[in-house]
Amino acid sequence: MSKPIIAVYAITKDWQLEEIKATARDYDVRVKDEIRPEDLKNIEIVYGWGSELSENIADLKQLKWIQKDTAGLDAIPESLRKDKDILLSNMSGVHAVPITENIFGYILGVARGIIPAMTSQLESKWDKSIASNMFSLKDKKVLVYGTGSIGQEIARTAKFFEMTTYGVNSNGRSIQTFDHTYTMESSQKILSDMDFVINALPLTDESELFFDKQIFANMNDSAYFLNIGRGESVKDEHLIEELEAGTLAGAYLDVTSPEPLPESSKLWQTQNLVITPHISGNVEHFRDTIYPIFKENLDSYLSNGTLAKNEYNKKKGY
Amino acid sequence: MSKPIIAVYAITKDWQLEEIKATARDYDVRVKDEIRPEDLKNIEIVYGWGSELSENIADLKQLKWIQKDTAGLDAIPESLRKDKDILLSNMSGVHAVPITENIFGYILGVARGIIPAMTSQLESKWDKSIASNMFSLKDKKVLVYGTGSIGQEIARTAKFFEMTTYGVNSNGRSIQTFDHTYTMESSQKILSDMDFVINALPLTDESELFFDKQIFANMNDSAYFLNIGRGESVKDEHLIEELEAGTLAGAYLDVTSPEPLPESSKLWQTQNLVITPHISGNVEHFRDTIYPIFKENLDSYLSNGTLAKNEYNKKKGY
Repeated sequence: MSKPIIAVYAITKDWQLEEIKATARDYDVRVKDEIRPEDLKNIEIVYGWGSELSENIADLKQLKWIQKDTAGLDAIPESLRKDKDILLSNMSGVHAVPITENIFGYILGVARGIIPAMTSQLESKWDKSIASNMFSLKDKKVLVYGTGSIGQEIARTAKFFEMTTYGVNSNGRSIQTFDHTYTMESSQKILSDMDFVINALPLTDESELFFDKQIFANMNDSAYFLNIGRGESVKDEHLIEELEAGTLAGAYLDVTSPEPLPESSKLWQTQNLVITPHISGNVEHFRDTIYPIFKENLDSYLSNGTLAKNEYNKKKGY
Repeated sequence: MSKPIIAVYAITKDWQLEEIKATARDYDVRVKDEIRPEDLKNIEIVYGWGSELSENIADLKQLKWIQKDTAGLDAIPESLRKDKDILLSNMSGVHAVPITENIFGYILGVARGIIPAMTSQLESKWDKSIASNMFSLKDKKVLVYGTGSIGQEIARTAKFFEMTTYGVNSNGRSIQTFDHTYTMESSQKILSDMDFVINALPLTDESELFFDKQIFANMNDSAYFLNIGRGESVKDEHLIEELEAGTLAGAYLDVTSPEPLPESSKLWQTQNLVITPHISGNVEHFRDTIYPIFKENLDSYLSNGTLAKNEYNKKKGY
């Protein structure tokens, strides 16, 4: 009988491939180009994914674990995503640090007058009045919707800058790095105290269009809104109204709906709004960043059949 | 004989004044408006400074310590600054955190594509190509000229983001928070390895026009230059040449020469250059920030005649 196959579709470095082979001696480790149609039935583990796998699901009779090489799992057919007998893991955590760096690039940019000064600079203007709205982050309050890996990294960084951290999750359970936690509903009552409100939620029925007039109206005029979750969670017209009326100090959107944002969108020229083109999760050395996660899960899988981290929650859908 | 006077010219809160009085029971504590000409001869300690003191130096016969309420000591006459019998201290440390926040607002702004995206946004352009120059701070190299309170705070923050920190001081001595330290001269040989080069030096003969063609040419094309020291340390024409030629990735100036920077300056419209109007040291709650430093020094002065911190080095000139 043939050895079970580990199919490597994710981009990997040579030393990484050698290490996988040395770790999984009872397996046949094959990269994408070495996998023939007759091998599909022997695949037990997939690192990454390929469209030829989606097209031949029926052949994947031995498949037990897919370690996707991205945060999103959209590329994997729904029947496999929902199959209780297949372990599924993603790379969601690897984006936590880069996304947090974007968050703080914006937060420090507005708090320390850099983003306002870039506007004065267009007019060659030395505008000292910018200083009157400047502040340090110490003791400022940040509320993060979503207390997963991204929310936790945002909170950890906020604590470095001595901010007070508030988190929102489904049942308001405590999460380390957050000083206080709330449910979606109970978070409403603290909105007016917040200096920064950040959406880091995945798109679900509950988060769709959640950030609307009611939320923005509850926020302080001097507060900032940031979205690195999904564009579909924000009611754009309401955000534009608040920013143009000056009842929100500013906003940062790394995600929009739709993407790419069309040139005709009013968002582009809305005052005190900064838009980046869904790039905050960008990781420079992607292969070096994702491989350790696969390796840790591989070690765990080989020793006891479970995954050490990043397992997809089939019930919650993220 | 009259009690010696503590003259309070710095802005203070009522509770702070009460605490000073309770601490220094053998002294007469007077705020600015309570000091008459005949009191000058009894002043032993000054917190802050006033022009009427500068105008009557000859009367200050009992003066033993000036705790200035700013980082700069320019307001104090040179004869007093150089007087060996007068202790002198400043507030330099209080600007370390806010200045560092500006430094990282810019560093994260360029590293994470926010500052480039603000340019695309002016043209309503969703420009994903920005991502190709994005990076995380982990393992990036930052070189700080000046390892005093500001340099150390920059390095401490850089270490939080897992950067490698290089510092420059007069004799290359080790400083905690810096992984490596160099002299002005020996720093030249590592310039080409650096991702960020920051000037945090006070203005001295050595630092005047130190950042010129030679420094910029040694730096990598993908590197960034930041100046939060003094404008006089940078040869502007050389910086403009490098930025326009694309042989420096970008620069951030919070200080210029002269200030305010005139509308006619070429710096304003130089590509990949961000200017803020000398605001990075801005502290929001200034009285609460500076008072603990005076109080700590007052306790030390009253118990043994020395200062606990922020003593001005008369020889070095900062």
